[in-house]
Amino acid sequence: MDNRASHPPHPLVVQKYGGTSVGDTSRIRAVADHVARTRQNGNHVVVVVSAMGKATDDLIRLATETSSVRPPREMDMLLTSGERVSMALLCMALADLGVPAVSFTGSQAGIITDTTHTRAKIVTIKGDRLRAAIDDGQIPVVAGFQGVSTQHDVTTLGRGGSDTTAVALASALDAKVCEIYTDVPGVFSADPRIVPDAAKLKRLSFEEMLEIAATGGRVLALRSVEFARNHGIPLQVRSSFTWEPGTTIDEEDPSMEQPLVTAVTHDMSEAKVTLPGVPDTPGIAARLFRALADNAINVDMIVQNSSLHGTTDISFTVPEDDLATSLQITRSLANEIGAQTPQADSNIAKVSLIGAGMKSHPGISATTFEVLAASNINIEMISTSPIRLSCVIRRDQAESAVAVLHKAFNLGEA
Amino acid sequence: MDNRASHPPHPLVVQKYGGTSVGDTSRIRAVADHVARTRQNGNHVVVVVSAMGKATDDLIRLATETSSVRPPREMDMLLTSGERVSMALLCMALADLGVPAVSFTGSQAGIITDTTHTRAKIVTIKGDRLRAAIDDGQIPVVAGFQGVSTQHDVTTLGRGGSDTTAVALASALDAKVCEIYTDVPGVFSADPRIVPDAAKLKRLSFEEMLEIAATGGRVLALRSVEFARNHGIPLQVRSSFTWEPGTTIDEEDPSMEQPLVTAVTHDMSEAKVTLPGVPDTPGIAARLFRALADNAINVDMIVQNSSLHGTTDISFTVPEDDLATSLQITRSLANEIGAQTPQADSNIAKVSLIGAGMKSHPGISATTFEVLAASNINIEMISTSPIRLSCVIRRDQAESAVAVLHKAFNLGEA
Repeated sequence: MDNRASHPPHPLVVQKYGGTSVGDTSRIRAVADHVARTRQNGNHVVVVVSAMGKATDDLIRLATETSSVRPPREMDMLLTSGERVSMALLCMALADLGVPAVSFTGSQAGIITDTTHTRAKIVTIKGDRLRAAIDDGQIPVVAGFQGVSTQHDVTTLGRGGSDTTAVALASALDAKVCEIYTDVPGVFSADPRIVPDAAKLKRLSFEEMLEIAATGGRVLALRSVEFARNHGIPLQVRSSFTWEPGTTIDEEDPSMEQPLVTAVTHDMSEAKVTLPGVPDTPGIAARLFRALADNAINVDMIVQNSSLHGTTDISFTVPEDDLATSLQITRSLANEIGAQTPQADSNIAKVSLIGAGMKSHPGISATTFEVLAASNINIEMISTSPIRLSCVIRRDQAESAVAVLHKAFNLGEA
Repeated sequence: MDNRASHPPHPLVVQKYGGTSVGDTSRIRAVADHVARTRQNGNHVVVVVSAMGKATDDLIRLATETSSVRPPREMDMLLTSGERVSMALLCMALADLGVPAVSFTGSQAGIITDTTHTRAKIVTIKGDRLRAAIDDGQIPVVAGFQGVSTQHDVTTLGRGGSDTTAVALASALDAKVCEIYTDVPGVFSADPRIVPDAAKLKRLSFEEMLEIAATGGRVLALRSVEFARNHGIPLQVRSSFTWEPGTTIDEEDPSMEQPLVTAVTHDMSEAKVTLPGVPDTPGIAARLFRALADNAINVDMIVQNSSLHGTTDISFTVPEDDLATSLQITRSLANEIGAQTPQADSNIAKVSLIGAGMKSHPGISATTFEVLAASNINIEMISTSPIRLSCVIRRDQAESAVAVLHKAFNLGEA
């Protein structure tokens, strides 16, 4: 009998530790302990780390102090120094525990990106050196957030980059799970700072997590969730401070009955532009949103109200940071087409309900509108997806809207 | 007529800036100004930078805090983050002045080393990307101190590594000069903190500079001077604070009359070991110094006094940091061969006179001994080279020995 046949190979776990998880040398030692324990439990482990705590902010401050011109290639060179520090220190802490570990830059890990500095996209992952290290009994510790371009320049992946590195490596190395360690214990049914009895969610579908990430939930970057869904990599969000079981994000389980509503999210980072008196002619909206897209402005919600007088009002929301540019583009179009002067409004918030069960329960909208009306909260814009309902309201009413909806749908801890 | 023929190509200058020269963002902007000026004066420029100020010390402290085990490969990964920061910031400061600059890690610059982490030796320099950048009108800003090994791992060159990077690049790129910018205005006839009227030396031969570096002068690392001599790269040591003309180090100029003595140096970092009562048999000394060499201990001076009783005393000096190990090795040999108990002495200093003119003037030793005797300074060991005379004396007499010798040979400012 071949003994090997009865011993399946060790499963591979990718663990990603964010900036607060490696914020100082004692946190790094705590992470090393956990990595060693995971290995002792019979897993192969690949670790992805961010830069320590506020290291990236400090580097950005240095750059701002040095120069008003900051070429993106040099910003990437600067910022990628941060992960070198955390990953080398983590390897030392592992060595201290007798666990052989070896650090890899994005380039050494074979994370090949396009040439778009500061927000590069991963083109392919070679990963030969990681596989060799694993086969050699070592723990690869990989720099998150960074890669090397097809032109051999150092690149960064932009916001949420380390999560993306972790998920992409998990996919390339065929890991059983990608664990995202952070400073919160998981994904909650609402922001616990607003809703004290918000419940930690045990399990979410990729689709629900995508909607949560897209509507203000800050635990995971949208992009890494998309990557995980597209490649079928189960995610776990956990705390590196308490190490308690966190939230699992995986394919929807059709055998389980879905809760009607899973979470209430809010987003206070958007602003609204309204263009009134638009002549009701085909192609006008297309021109507006093409111009915004050409300026890399991410339009979220769009509402158009036809009127009886041959004109229409178009409202849309954009990130508040892009409001000035958006207004300028809209003004210039208004002049051309003879519409009225566009209006900007920063005092808005978007409150969203997310739940896989909403697909089969059409009553959610009605309940939501009733609950908000009962609290004298006026709804200015509405948008929906099969598993989401979003309402734009006044910003100063956002917190009470979240609280009353969370209560109305019984999302609190049992 | 071909116009190009009458315009020789721009000469290439390699400029190296040490840690204090890029110690903060305003220093980095001052360096950018000087680089831009050098370029405006019709030169191609390649810049080599160290990590900012105390950045390397801070990283070493973090490593010590994190772990008692610090694998050399991970120390190299950690420490090479420092130059990324300074070089990216310098490129931004140059961009601010409208000067196109592009940073290169040791690996990107093609600095290939052996695999000896923390003190790697350069094997070859490819430099294709640097040449392409120069041809493209850009200023390459290269990370000092670091390279990539033949095994594709990040390495550092050890003490004085950035100077070595600069000289090696100057040689590979056929530069006309390698300028080393630091926080002192040049090489002096003695340490100005001890001898207030010490003179800045305008010109030194490579051999004189080698002897100065080997006997306690701290301005240039011995290794970079050796590299410069072997490849015939003229060096200039200058201040990045005053930008005044500094010290040129070049081939000896046989047409000039050499000054008898050029500089007095001192070194307080060594200790002496004496092994008394060694049986006067061939091969004993060889066994001792082989054992020391096998432990990577750099023995400096060796003196052996034969006695009339069939035994001999052997004294030698080693870096004080290696004293404990040296003593242990010597003790173990003493037991084997039946010599007496070895003695250690840390309270020594080495004072040296250096001068290319000493070759043809045999009277220097006599004058030196007379001058020291007149100050009641006892000489314990003596060693000489054609252009150097070194004496080991009591450490607390070192400063006065330097002062009286500097005066006796008229080395002060005119």
